[in-house]
Amino acid sequence: MRHRLTGLAALAAALLLPAAQADEGMWLPSQLPEVEAQMRAAGFEGDAAALSDLSRPPMSAVVSLGGCTASFVSPHGLVVTNHHCAHGAIQLNSTPEDNLIANGFNAATMADEVSAGPGARVLVTDRFERITDRILAGARGLSGRDYYEAVEAASKAAVAECEAEPGYRCSVVDMYSGTDFHLVRQLEIRDVRLAYAPPDAIGSYGDEIDNFMWPRHSGDFAFYRAYVGPDGKPAAFAPENVPYCPAAWLEVSTAPLAEGDFAMLAGYPGRTFRHRTAPEFAEQVEWQLPSRVELMGALLAAIERASAGDAGATVRYAAQVASLKNTLKRAQGELEGLRRSDAVAARRAEEAAMAAWLDGQPDAAGARADIAAALQVLDGARATRERDQLFSLMSAQTQLLRSAMQLQRLALERGKPDALRQPGYQLRDEPRIEAALRQAQRRYAPEVEQAILAELLARHRELPVEQRVPEVDAVFGTDATATAAALAALYSGTALDAEEERLRLLAADPGVARASVDPMMRAAAALLQAELRHEDEAKARAGELLRLRPAYMRGMIGHARSQGRAVYPDANSTLRVSYGRIQGLEPRDAVRYAPLTTVEGIVEKHTGVAPFDAPAPLLEAIARRDFGATADPALGTQTVNFLTNLDTTGGNSGSPVMDARGRLVGLNFDSNWEAVSASWMFDPRYKRAIHVDARYMRWIMSRVYPAPRLLREMGLHEEVADPQAPAAAAAR
Amino acid sequence: MRHRLTGLAALAAALLLPAAQADEGMWLPSQLPEVEAQMRAAGFEGDAAALSDLSRPPMSAVVSLGGCTASFVSPHGLVVTNHHCAHGAIQLNSTPEDNLIANGFNAATMADEVSAGPGARVLVTDRFERITDRILAGARGLSGRDYYEAVEAASKAAVAECEAEPGYRCSVVDMYSGTDFHLVRQLEIRDVRLAYAPPDAIGSYGDEIDNFMWPRHSGDFAFYRAYVGPDGKPAAFAPENVPYCPAAWLEVSTAPLAEGDFAMLAGYPGRTFRHRTAPEFAEQVEWQLPSRVELMGALLAAIERASAGDAGATVRYAAQVASLKNTLKRAQGELEGLRRSDAVAARRAEEAAMAAWLDGQPDAAGARADIAAALQVLDGARATRERDQLFSLMSAQTQLLRSAMQLQRLALERGKPDALRQPGYQLRDEPRIEAALRQAQRRYAPEVEQAILAELLARHRELPVEQRVPEVDAVFGTDATATAAALAALYSGTALDAEEERLRLLAADPGVARASVDPMMRAAAALLQAELRHEDEAKARAGELLRLRPAYMRGMIGHARSQGRAVYPDANSTLRVSYGRIQGLEPRDAVRYAPLTTVEGIVEKHTGVAPFDAPAPLLEAIARRDFGATADPALGTQTVNFLTNLDTTGGNSGSPVMDARGRLVGLNFDSNWEAVSASWMFDPRYKRAIHVDARYMRWIMSRVYPAPRLLREMGLHEEVADPQAPAAAAAR
Repeated sequence: MRHRLTGLAALAAALLLPAAQADEGMWLPSQLPEVEAQMRAAGFEGDAAALSDLSRPPMSAVVSLGGCTASFVSPHGLVVTNHHCAHGAIQLNSTPEDNLIANGFNAATMADEVSAGPGARVLVTDRFERITDRILAGARGLSGRDYYEAVEAASKAAVAECEAEPGYRCSVVDMYSGTDFHLVRQLEIRDVRLAYAPPDAIGSYGDEIDNFMWPRHSGDFAFYRAYVGPDGKPAAFAPENVPYCPAAWLEVSTAPLAEGDFAMLAGYPGRTFRHRTAPEFAEQVEWQLPSRVELMGALLAAIERASAGDAGATVRYAAQVASLKNTLKRAQGELEGLRRSDAVAARRAEEAAMAAWLDGQPDAAGARADIAAALQVLDGARATRERDQLFSLMSAQTQLLRSAMQLQRLALERGKPDALRQPGYQLRDEPRIEAALRQAQRRYAPEVEQAILAELLARHRELPVEQRVPEVDAVFGTDATATAAALAALYSGTALDAEEERLRLLAADPGVARASVDPMMRAAAALLQAELRHEDEAKARAGELLRLRPAYMRGMIGHARSQGRAVYPDANSTLRVSYGRIQGLEPRDAVRYAPLTTVEGIVEKHTGVAPFDAPAPLLEAIARRDFGATADPALGTQTVNFLTNLDTTGGNSGSPVMDARGRLVGLNFDSNWEAVSASWMFDPRYKRAIHVDARYMRWIMSRVYPAPRLLREMGLHEEVADPQAPAAAAAR
Repeated sequence: MRHRLTGLAALAAALLLPAAQADEGMWLPSQLPEVEAQMRAAGFEGDAAALSDLSRPPMSAVVSLGGCTASFVSPHGLVVTNHHCAHGAIQLNSTPEDNLIANGFNAATMADEVSAGPGARVLVTDRFERITDRILAGARGLSGRDYYEAVEAASKAAVAECEAEPGYRCSVVDMYSGTDFHLVRQLEIRDVRLAYAPPDAIGSYGDEIDNFMWPRHSGDFAFYRAYVGPDGKPAAFAPENVPYCPAAWLEVSTAPLAEGDFAMLAGYPGRTFRHRTAPEFAEQVEWQLPSRVELMGALLAAIERASAGDAGATVRYAAQVASLKNTLKRAQGELEGLRRSDAVAARRAEEAAMAAWLDGQPDAAGARADIAAALQVLDGARATRERDQLFSLMSAQTQLLRSAMQLQRLALERGKPDALRQPGYQLRDEPRIEAALRQAQRRYAPEVEQAILAELLARHRELPVEQRVPEVDAVFGTDATATAAALAALYSGTALDAEEERLRLLAADPGVARASVDPMMRAAAALLQAELRHEDEAKARAGELLRLRPAYMRGMIGHARSQGRAVYPDANSTLRVSYGRIQGLEPRDAVRYAPLTTVEGIVEKHTGVAPFDAPAPLLEAIARRDFGATADPALGTQTVNFLTNLDTTGGNSGSPVMDARGRLVGLNFDSNWEAVSASWMFDPRYKRAIHVDARYMRWIMSRVYPAPRLLREMGLHEEVADPQAPAAAAAR
């Protein structure tokens, strides 16, 4: 056992490692040639220049599903992703007679592949172009909200121009906190069909209990196929559509895996905060996360007290309680991780080193002034953080008050041309708002909503006067007695608890909502004024930060370059590549996790009760030790999942994991609990990513629920189980 | 990573290992020469013959505290044991001004050592003599209850003769299930004083949460000193008493430890069932443990329902709920373990091999007949197992009904000479009974007790008629309506819920209890008849098994000997030795536990909230990395606990762990969760014992809460922290 240092000492040791050892980074494909030496040191055997070209394999095979990542694995548009990413499609095609969630799905022929639904998308990135000058041209010289709106207008124009060609979805993305802007163009394939999914008891074996956990034993894979119109262009689902022919597809590896092997992953990670300033790190650790933990705990207690003994209310608030608990748990995990990694001290040290380096640069004074100004803007936000947190929860955690505020806001926005409406209140958002107004019924109990508001209002009353929201004081009063009376009057006097009344106001002319004398609508009208004022402040700050942060980022990048290090931008849902290796984990003193799990672990966890209810065909195949070519030669058994140090975050679900030669060896599907804080800081001691081993996928598809058609299509020659054998007979 | 086989395959592999690899066994010291070759193969460097001699070191240094084990570590009677074994003594000497549990205790001089209480004992085994012929002489030719009583009478006579010499406690112990009987004589030292204890936050760091868990970080050690009268004979506490001079004491090792090192342990393990028959194994796995889990769960649910919303009742049943939960959890763990180890199949295989071997022996027919008869007796017990389980819980899980049954039973037993009274109802037991009758008040709520009985009675009513207890039917009725009415009448009509009434009946003449017309006392009088009848049946069965099991044991021993294997008797609180090695654990797929934990783990677990509230002097010493000579050279830090494959069970707490040359390297204090089933089966894959590293003890006593006097007394030359340094200043 290697001695594990703690705190700063370990961090310092980790930071002193050469970059090739730390393996941190969500690189833009175009940056890969910059880090090729480190990639080679980690074991990469391909050509970094080829890897950086989105029009060539393997990058052109990596697609977005919008929220998840996937990859082409055949010349006929076959796509592999996570089972949990295809869950909606599996559910959609389930019937009382054939529950595909329980039974899995295995299309016998291409004609048997079923639609993943009208909203399903396969997005193929084909253009990624730096357009910083175009975006910032109109913003230069401006500040605050004007700067923000100039950037927004230029972005909308670029997107509209790009989307003029049908079949594409375009976006402008901000790199390095306002430093650079890129135009991304994606082919938008709209006929997506389900080809294969194992039963849920394989695809999400362990489910919520094992979520974030290692060791893991989940067969989290499923297959889609992308279809296009007979003319080869994207089209809505139609029987005459044909499989899409991708420019590239990944080859599935048949080689074994072992600890230390090179691995890389491509995908669409959502959002990280690693380039935030040290004061923002401190704020996250010292206030944001602890106050979230405290507040979520208080809301949970308030809901529990108010719904105690009322089975109906308990059911109606179950989803909100689950969500609050999840937010609380994640905040605790993130806090724990950032403290364990001493993230604030680490960021301060990086910032101090940058500042020292900056002092020696020609443009130091201007940069320092911008950085100081950015920090002042952040200070300004901090001055109202308690207010902003409480005020946003007053609508986010209620049903009736939120409905009223949405109705008032919509009434306001409907007075504008659609393009100028606030995002979230545009024409395309109205069906979603209607659904929420309907759903309010199933998630509401008056005494519980009042308890939630009472809890938030009590905290609001204790804010220093400069943080108090005058409209909140006016509506709810400034002492406990007044608040109690105001809440009672509001909830006994409103008609908004009737679904038809909410829908009537939604359907009515904007003037009707504005003129409503319903006390809840009146309260919402008052609170809306505060919301708009806070939004204005926030947009002004966002504009200033967009203008000022680039100085900070350029300082960080310049300092890193001076030390021979490249800097990747924070994740923003664009295509990124991370590289590293298969690696175990020492999560705590005297505990070591091996990087490969085996089917023996499935048997160990099996209880017969979901989520540990391995299907009989799987248990039987394990008992027969019917592994063949997919078995691991060193372990002498079938592997299931593996662990790497690859850099991932939400959005990387389904990302192909590739070997040193770009062959598919697995699918990313989760991170470990110790890495919840990685959205702020990559700590090489704890950051791991969890993948399905492609060998497990091949084994399931050859010996447990055989899909010889798809195996052949992927160029695999697994020996498929005799269809007369018990396991195969049980397969669909 | 080595591939971990599952189930029978792994078991077979484990059983095929040479004995020296399996390291199983709680050996009588006298057996050690028989297994010396295996001990040497494991690394033993001493002399097995010397080790088997109770009058020589190191065995003569190993003492019993009655329930715990300890050992002498100086020529002046200094004794080291677990902190949790000294907990009562620490509590006893705590005052509101000086809470020794929180602060720890460190006697500045011998005169400052404080009494561990009048009940504290140090028991030094000095004689261990086989007296089988004497015990069985009067039993031969008898059977059933007569056999049982003949053995009991001969045992009582041998004990009385042995205890004629003052200062000794004697007992007759059954080895190999009635095959052999030994007379054990122990010097009974009655003046025991507390010399040193770390604060509870060190001694039981992790407490209930970490109980049974590895990795562990507990400083579970404390020091007693044995005192005798000025004449050198055992005496009650008196100021003029002098330290006892033991015949031997253990040397504390100053050498490092590492995985694979030889280790051995001596102590007084309480009870194991490893020589039970295969049908008893099957009964344990198929009925005993599952039904216990089910029944404890049902009782917990009944208590929860009946006390819901009643804070008073919830508090009064908290201890009973905790105990039921603990019983439930242990039963689940044992069941899990026995299933994982496929214990029933393993035992059947051993038995079949023995039977095959027995067929070739000269006395096979008689042995086979005895074994068959023993199995028939066990079948007989099985026929009433549901009845016996439910009936015993009716008193065990109630307060008022149990009080009434105790009062009736005591009234009966008081009519006999004390020596003939049922154990538990002798004169010496009366203070305990009185305490229980008083305590009933604090653990009782009528609606909860009725709910418990209703749950048990509903199950009793569903028993087949031949298992139904007529007295239960008579008292509580034979249908749900009658039972509800009977319970209501019983609990509304009794005066036994008043403490004074229970104590009045306890103090009164036996006739008063018998003649009482209190409905609870009448019910108890009826149920007592059933209790006495069941006891008679049980004693007759116990006698038959005592007579018949030796044939089975001799078969097992003979078969093992024919294969060159020695057989140790089941644990029975006599001195035993186990040997093995320092060894990590692979508890489940892809998880490996290292065998040594370090102070870094204390910091990782520290939350500031008990039981993870490491004291400041400890955290400061860790932060200073103030380790010196006690640090582990390979790990470069201070170790805390370690793991071995030594064979232990309850009673082994405080057992000295020794190296290949008999030097003290640690103290046993717990087992791992995976080994809960080891009382039935030693599975080398999962059975581990958890120890305090003597180096941690030395470090705490030199750098954190320094005790230079005791270190010197043990011949240790640690560099003691400067008394002016912060850590030392905080020490007492």
